[in-house]
Amino acid sequence: MGKVYLVGAGPGDSGLLTLKGLECIKRAEVIVYDSLVSPTLLNFANQECRLIYAGKIAGNHSKTQDEINGLLWKYAEEGKQVVRLKGGDPFVFGRGGEEAEYLAERGVEFEVVPGVSSCYSVPAYSGIPVTHRGYASSFHVVTAHGRDGSEGIDYKNLAEAEGTIVFLMGLKSLDEIARGLMENGKSPRTPAAVISR
Amino acid sequence: MGKVYLVGAGPGDSGLLTLKGLECIKRAEVIVYDSLVSPTLLNFANQECRLIYAGKIAGNHSKTQDEINGLLWKYAEEGKQVVRLKGGDPFVFGRGGEEAEYLAERGVEFEVVPGVSSCYSVPAYSGIPVTHRGYASSFHVVTAHGRDGSEGIDYKNLAEAEGTIVFLMGLKSLDEIARGLMENGKSPRTPAAVISR
Repeated sequence: MGKVYLVGAGPGDSGLLTLKGLECIKRAEVIVYDSLVSPTLLNFANQECRLIYAGKIAGNHSKTQDEINGLLWKYAEEGKQVVRLKGGDPFVFGRGGEEAEYLAERGVEFEVVPGVSSCYSVPAYSGIPVTHRGYASSFHVVTAHGRDGSEGIDYKNLAEAEGTIVFLMGLKSLDEIARGLMENGKSPRTPAAVISR
Repeated sequence: MGKVYLVGAGPGDSGLLTLKGLECIKRAEVIVYDSLVSPTLLNFANQECRLIYAGKIAGNHSKTQDEINGLLWKYAEEGKQVVRLKGGDPFVFGRGGEEAEYLAERGVEFEVVPGVSSCYSVPAYSGIPVTHRGYASSFHVVTAHGRDGSEGIDYKNLAEAEGTIVFLMGLKSLDEIARGLMENGKSPRTPAAVISR
C-alpha cells in the first residue's frame, strides 16, 4: 500500500510552498493537482511522475470529488506515493477533510502537509495585516461560494463581529456581501479591499 | 540601506518553513528571532549571521517591541539584510503590522514573507479540519492573550457564529472561554479540543 500526501501549495507565489511540500512533490509518483496551483511547482516533480489535472475550468469541475477520491485510493492501492496538491491549505475550504475521511475509512495511510492559506497571506501581500493591535484582535474567514441556498451567510453575526472579515471566493457575490453587512449594521465607512488574482 | 524581511517560520515543524523563508534565512546578515521558532531553523543561517533573541521567557519579554523595532531599523540603516523571524505568520497576531508600519515611516525597505499559521495547521496536525462540508463553512480566530481588560472578547457574538472558533494563546483562559461561550448559548455538547505544544 502506498501513501497519500494532502499538500497545500500556498496562495500562488511558488516561493510560499513549504520545504515538506517540496519534498513530497519531488518524491511523488502521482500528483493530482488543482487549477489554483502555480504550474511551476509541477516542474519540481520527477520526470516519471504521473500528473493528473483535477481542477475547475470556467466553473466546470474537470473531475468530481468522488472521482478525485477514487483516484487517490486507486494509486495508493497500487503502492504509489500520491500527492494531492491544492492551492492554499488543504483544510481551509480545500475539501481536504473529506479526502482524509475517505482515505481513513479505506485504511489508506495519509499525511496532511499544511500550506500557507490565502485567507491572510493574500491580504498581507496587499499590505493588509488581518490582525493589528488597536484595530483587530480577531479575524473571521467565510466562503462565499458553494453554499446551500438554505444555509446562507449569517451577515448579522458577521456585521457585529470584532476584527477583520475575509470572504474567500467572493468576487461574484460582492454586491450581496456589501449589502448583507450594511443592512445588518456594518458602517458603510468600514475600510474594505477587493483582491483578485 | 539594507532591507528587512518579516518572515513567518510556521507552527513549529521546520518542514513547514517556506522556500522563500529559507532563502531569506540563508542570506540574512542579522536574524531577530522569537522563542516560538523551531531552533533548528537557525542552523540554516550563514556562519557570519548575527542571531538576536527577542522572544519571551516565562512571560517576560526579553526585548520590548520598541527595542525590536529599533534593532530592525539600526541594522537596515547599516545596510544589512535583516530577517525578523516569527512563529506562525507575521500578520496573524505576530505584530508584523506594527513592525511594517514602523519601517515604512522611516523609509526602510521591507518585505513580508507569510508563513503557515498555527490557527489552522495545528488543528490539522491533530486531525481537525477548521472547515468541513456540512459542518463548518467558516472559521473564527481570536487571541485570548494580550487584550485590554476593557475590550474583552465578545463571547455573545462568537457563541452565535457559524463554524469553528479557534482561540490562540488560550490555555490560561480555558475556564473563562468555556464559561463565556456557554453563558451566551453555546451548547455544552459542542465538540472542543485543547491543543498544546
